[in-house]
Amino acid sequence: MGRELLGDVARELVEEAERDRECVLAIDIGGTKFAVGLVGAHGEIVVAERVATPPGGDAGTLWKTLSDLIDVVLARRPEARTVGVGVGCGGPMTWPEGAVSPLNMPGWRGFPLRERLAGRFPGMPVRVHNDAICVAAAEHWRGAGRGSDHMLGMVVSTGVGGGLILGGRLIDGGTGNAGHIGHVVIDPDGPPCQCGGRGCLEAISRGPGLAAWALEQGWTPGATGARPEGPYVEAAQASGRQLAADAAAGDPVAIAAFARAGRALGIGIASATHLCDLDVVTIGGGVSQAGPLLFGPLEEALRRHARLGFAQRVRVVPAHLGQDAGLIGAAALVLRPTHYWTGPPDM
Amino acid sequence: MGRELLGDVARELVEEAERDRECVLAIDIGGTKFAVGLVGAHGEIVVAERVATPPGGDAGTLWKTLSDLIDVVLARRPEARTVGVGVGCGGPMTWPEGAVSPLNMPGWRGFPLRERLAGRFPGMPVRVHNDAICVAAAEHWRGAGRGSDHMLGMVVSTGVGGGLILGGRLIDGGTGNAGHIGHVVIDPDGPPCQCGGRGCLEAISRGPGLAAWALEQGWTPGATGARPEGPYVEAAQASGRQLAADAAAGDPVAIAAFARAGRALGIGIASATHLCDLDVVTIGGGVSQAGPLLFGPLEEALRRHARLGFAQRVRVVPAHLGQDAGLIGAAALVLRPTHYWTGPPDM
Repeated sequence: MGRELLGDVARELVEEAERDRECVLAIDIGGTKFAVGLVGAHGEIVVAERVATPPGGDAGTLWKTLSDLIDVVLARRPEARTVGVGVGCGGPMTWPEGAVSPLNMPGWRGFPLRERLAGRFPGMPVRVHNDAICVAAAEHWRGAGRGSDHMLGMVVSTGVGGGLILGGRLIDGGTGNAGHIGHVVIDPDGPPCQCGGRGCLEAISRGPGLAAWALEQGWTPGATGARPEGPYVEAAQASGRQLAADAAAGDPVAIAAFARAGRALGIGIASATHLCDLDVVTIGGGVSQAGPLLFGPLEEALRRHARLGFAQRVRVVPAHLGQDAGLIGAAALVLRPTHYWTGPPDM
Repeated sequence: MGRELLGDVARELVEEAERDRECVLAIDIGGTKFAVGLVGAHGEIVVAERVATPPGGDAGTLWKTLSDLIDVVLARRPEARTVGVGVGCGGPMTWPEGAVSPLNMPGWRGFPLRERLAGRFPGMPVRVHNDAICVAAAEHWRGAGRGSDHMLGMVVSTGVGGGLILGGRLIDGGTGNAGHIGHVVIDPDGPPCQCGGRGCLEAISRGPGLAAWALEQGWTPGATGARPEGPYVEAAQASGRQLAADAAAGDPVAIAAFARAGRALGIGIASATHLCDLDVVTIGGGVSQAGPLLFGPLEEALRRHARLGFAQRVRVVPAHLGQDAGLIGAAALVLRPTHYWTGPPDM
């Protein structure tokens, strides 16, 4: 092997080692927790930390909590070379500018999150998107939607959110808000929705919606199932988990509540499939943990309503990535821009 | 001016004249009529001919009718240079292969329309798509959706169809069937739909659906309004037109029928807007001719259900291009592939 060729091989090895140290700082901001991690080139989480969202925190407190968590994560991998920042955050927000007003975080109203992060990390891309859209991107890139070019990634928990991948690319819509499957109308005369509308999928199928309906029908929480436990359990989540525990233990009202939510999900997915000609729908989030109690009635309603030939192929599958999805999807905004970023390239 | 420069100018003039003679052969195939035209580079219809679809025609009769009509059109502009063929056809079809099985043309089942046309026009692109998708492309390129990158183009007549343009590009979906707004579910317990489902937008808002509902409610056709007239008026269309005439003349049942259809359209559009973050929805087709009788209740329902901030900007406007839309959109598949064709470029 000649001297020059040896030099080339050595240079390639050095470059590969460099690339191995390149990471995206990924941030996932929700009403319950803040997560920050370093994500490698192939979507692998190198390190991640989580803290509870400070309840009732003002803008400065929220920012400091995030900023401190970033410091902790960076300190854990001093050898990592950060090449960009990707953020998934609860909506609404202005997009692609990334001024955020997460529904469950009153302390941030029009908070210039992207701008602040760009100030801390100058000279590199800083990209913010809706958290449900990041989850959809993650499931498409590395999760249950892999290999499909036409998918809807859903999250069913305190709210019902989603993101659309069509033709292999993330769909942003006119204002970065495409994917709001939670506000597809299921029953025009149904229950009022937080959005001001009526009969939206979210109004029927969100965790607190299920629990509220079950209570109306005479459900006594915990009379049948075990009590739920775990970190960061909000009241709303707790009641959803309790309902799932009671349903699993055979409580008929709890079972009916999941069946009602599943039916609404099936109808909404049928509509989305007809409109967008989908291959696959991934469903994650706390409510989806109920398994067959939810997915059985979902499938039944979906097959009753998705009748056009092309729509019958659609598959509804549980999401694969769990709570990592938000970080992986946030990183995808930076690592796979051809698929997941249509905003300005210099952001 | 040197000899070479003069030569360049002359060559450019010749090339421009050549381009002016370049046309796309555009074909629009529906259950009521066949239309064939030559469309110029800017979407202008140079010449067009229409004939009634032979009722109950077998595969050969239908093909001969189309082929003869193509001869007539080409003979009317012998100087035109055809550079491609674009076709809009009633679905379903295999896409992009273009084997068509239009619902209202039992003579064609899996008919290899694209293959046949490619045989007649070798060495040039021959592109087939759903007729409603062609209408949407046309309204986006040259009609009421111009300037918007996020739109739904709808046709409300014997059926309810549509096409999606998102991020400035036609959305095909996994099988070329994206845009089926007619089978978004409005009322899960509503009337049965031709597709086998229940409560689809099409089941409620298609012309024959309106008329059927009005008859059930005691409507006496023609008791109030004038009788409709015109070429190619099918029974179903006639009853739709009669209903519109009666509604315009004040028949309360006829008015209620359009209000019911408008309300369903408004709900379906609210769902599509939340899911796809749309700027504008264009509506054409016979039923949309009813004007405020339809658009008034539509707007009311839309604004009641499209409540998220980003969704409130959506505008619903009448289509601009009328019966030319099908031909212009078919031509767009060939003339504007960056926006309207994601199939193989050699088709």
